Amino acid sequence: MKTQKRKIVILGGGFGGLNTAKALKGADAEITLVDKANHHLFQPLLYQVATAALSPGDIATPLRALVGKDSGIRVILGEVEKVDPENKTLSLLDGKTVPYDQLVIAAGAKYNYFGNPQWEEHAPGLKSLSDALQVRERILLSLEEAEQIPDPNLRKPFLSYVIIGGGPTGVEMAGAIAEITKRSIAREYNNIDPDEVRIFLIEAAPGILNGYPETLSKKAQKTLKNMGVRLLLNTPVTKIEPHKIFFPNGSIESPNIIWAAGVVAHPLVQSLGAEHDRNGRVMVKDNLSLPGYPDIFVIGDAAHFKSEKGSPLPAIASVAIQQGEFVGKLLRNDPSGASYRAVFRYTDKGSMATIGRAKAVADIKGMRFSGFFAWLLWSFVHILYLASFRNRGRVFLEWIWSYFTLNRGVRLITDRSGCKHCKTSGNIPPMHQEKVKEKKVPHPLELQH
Amino acid sequence: MKTQKRKIVILGGGFGGLNTAKALKGADAEITLVDKANHHLFQPLLYQVATAALSPGDIATPLRALVGKDSGIRVILGEVEKVDPENKTLSLLDGKTVPYDQLVIAAGAKYNYFGNPQWEEHAPGLKSLSDALQVRERILLSLEEAEQIPDPNLRKPFLSYVIIGGGPTGVEMAGAIAEITKRSIAREYNNIDPDEVRIFLIEAAPGILNGYPETLSKKAQKTLKNMGVRLLLNTPVTKIEPHKIFFPNGSIESPNIIWAAGVVAHPLVQSLGAEHDRNGRVMVKDNLSLPGYPDIFVIGDAAHFKSEKGSPLPAIASVAIQQGEFVGKLLRNDPSGASYRAVFRYTDKGSMATIGRAKAVADIKGMRFSGFFAWLLWSFVHILYLASFRNRGRVFLEWIWSYFTLNRGVRLITDRSGCKHCKTSGNIPPMHQEKVKEKKVPHPLELQH
Repeated sequence: MKTQKRKIVILGGGFGGLNTAKALKGADAEITLVDKANHHLFQPLLYQVATAALSPGDIATPLRALVGKDSGIRVILGEVEKVDPENKTLSLLDGKTVPYDQLVIAAGAKYNYFGNPQWEEHAPGLKSLSDALQVRERILLSLEEAEQIPDPNLRKPFLSYVIIGGGPTGVEMAGAIAEITKRSIAREYNNIDPDEVRIFLIEAAPGILNGYPETLSKKAQKTLKNMGVRLLLNTPVTKIEPHKIFFPNGSIESPNIIWAAGVVAHPLVQSLGAEHDRNGRVMVKDNLSLPGYPDIFVIGDAAHFKSEKGSPLPAIASVAIQQGEFVGKLLRNDPSGASYRAVFRYTDKGSMATIGRAKAVADIKGMRFSGFFAWLLWSFVHILYLASFRNRGRVFLEWIWSYFTLNRGVRLITDRSGCKHCKTSGNIPPMHQEKVKEKKVPHPLELQH
Repeated sequence: MKTQKRKIVILGGGFGGLNTAKALKGADAEITLVDKANHHLFQPLLYQVATAALSPGDIATPLRALVGKDSGIRVILGEVEKVDPENKTLSLLDGKTVPYDQLVIAAGAKYNYFGNPQWEEHAPGLKSLSDALQVRERILLSLEEAEQIPDPNLRKPFLSYVIIGGGPTGVEMAGAIAEITKRSIAREYNNIDPDEVRIFLIEAAPGILNGYPETLSKKAQKTLKNMGVRLLLNTPVTKIEPHKIFFPNGSIESPNIIWAAGVVAHPLVQSLGAEHDRNGRVMVKDNLSLPGYPDIFVIGDAAHFKSEKGSPLPAIASVAIQQGEFVGKLLRNDPSGASYRAVFRYTDKGSMATIGRAKAVADIKGMRFSGFFAWLLWSFVHILYLASFRNRGRVFLEWIWSYFTLNRGVRLITDRSGCKHCKTSGNIPPMHQEKVKEKKVPHPLELQH
């Protein structure tokens, strides 16, 4: 409070925001990091929490532990309601106001329901730990329900899993669900035959993993089919109701409908009034700043940055990381803010997707891999990142163990109905909720303390 | 369904129920295990989940994984509403009926609010993973709130922690909170001075750890004081309001009030109509069966069994384990059920409580230990149990690592407001909730799929 240092505010503690903060460490500025969660999340592995392979603690680390007190970076847990570029302030939902001199928006993306926001409730996506735990609970409860329904026709919906979107997330999710249901879990249920389990991967386009080379896309399709996943290509979704999804030529009943079909930038970014693309991503300048606002930078999934090929950079972690590092250095080396002449250049490190244990596809600088070797590569890159990140050997051991042993040890239903604020019972799928009677709890003993 | 095997139903998958099931493996009977959770919980370490040292997955294992399909034991996820001893059936809350020939009730206990059920909401206890996650969230959010309140007087409540009950759970909880707040966490907050944190352990009796030898109780008091825990002895609770607790001579304001003061048997057991003690525990015969109902056995925290000294056996894990093994063997070896002449005998394995890292007290067959050696003993016994139980080396490594490094890595707020059924915001302590404005989410883009 004594000195009038310049104030840099970073919005979001994901890959982009965190790397901005890291690059700014020790800068002569008052740095504030605002996030609505108290942790950084390794989102590429979120589907493994949803499929009970990893614990939330394995892929998330408290932001405070990452930036630390000594770095001089202030961390605020809060949700931003509005950016006011004229007065250079942020308003938080809890009423607080945060002033800034320079602002880095790394707010990320949310799932795009293509104008049907009401679908979200019936087909949740995977963006936060809370989403992942909810999906995990649905999958596990669905199997418990199925186990107790003697009629194979009536239990069919509970053994059906529908994943919408054939991008990397959808492919990884479908593969992981095939493994958890058909292999490691089905053997623990007396009444369920693994062949009864149906997993659908729905894609509006004619192929999956669009943007990957054709050969890898085909390879992924074949692998998924071998694992028992049913691919419905050229199949746009027309409607989603509770536990039912509709297509032009039919429908599927299931309490397990998961959305992985395209993202849209955070609403906050769209509300800035800047020009944006059809995914709500803000068009940014060469130095990632907002046209007309040289002190506001937008990075990561929220930004539309034209690559050398003319197409926008993909919404993936390595783009956000590189952009965060770029902006962090820029603000650190050029504190006056008079002119930021640097131009961001993206180094493409390739793309990969894992389909299941020992099965993956990868495209690294034109070299294409699939199968076991691609999977080893995928594991190596992810373990490397996670380990450098949490800076300890434990993650390494834990993660290798869990993945290699096919051990889905985290199959826990933590009884979300325990939430005191929550009136409806969270631990029975609504499909059969009408059967649930009012819970009568006998009176506790009338004893004196 | 083809053979008319006798039906053994076990109610509860805790220490008692699980060990009954294990002892019954391979018996010539149709065995069913009913639990409202899908996992067995290692309750003695639940406070470590509440204080962010361990993940839920570290101390809980799916029941299905433990009993397995091959054992022939059926697992039902469900809550029992009523036992009908005349018709020999159980009714579940979801409307299902489960018939039995022999019934083992291992339903455990819940916290005793001494005739004030309304206190539970303001001072939750620790019985389930859900409870522990809720307490963890309260502790972490409280620190986040305090960090953002500049006035030391206004932030005082958020830096206050009140634990009610000086038994092993209360003592362990107070020690663990002292460690997490004063040592590993406070250093990450810019505005909080560790000396501002106040931890109160409230006990109505003149001493803590009653039932332990006097010297150990005194030792534990001294250790807690050195860790900065304030002991309020001879202090009965007179009232609990939201974020405020009252005593005969004063009150404390805090959103972190945790109940650990005595337990009462599961309401289901009390409703059986059998004679019970003032804690609701059913008086059982020498063979643990219910007087008048030779085919119903009650074990663990729900049973009142007179020890050789005349006092009832304590409500601890080793009693439940031994009783489970006893009943399991009894039912296995004497399937006719005509007469069960065996008499249960408890082997006292001693008692111990840990107060913090490298600090514990233990009383093993009259030998008393305290300090580092007692803590090593405590660690050894707990690791041994957990490891045998989950049957893998991972727990061993993980747990040693986490405990020895003082690493509270699981400091995650998983945003319980994400619960779709939940109308109120779960991630701001209600104390300051009035400040929260209605959340305005801009409309998603109107795009066509």
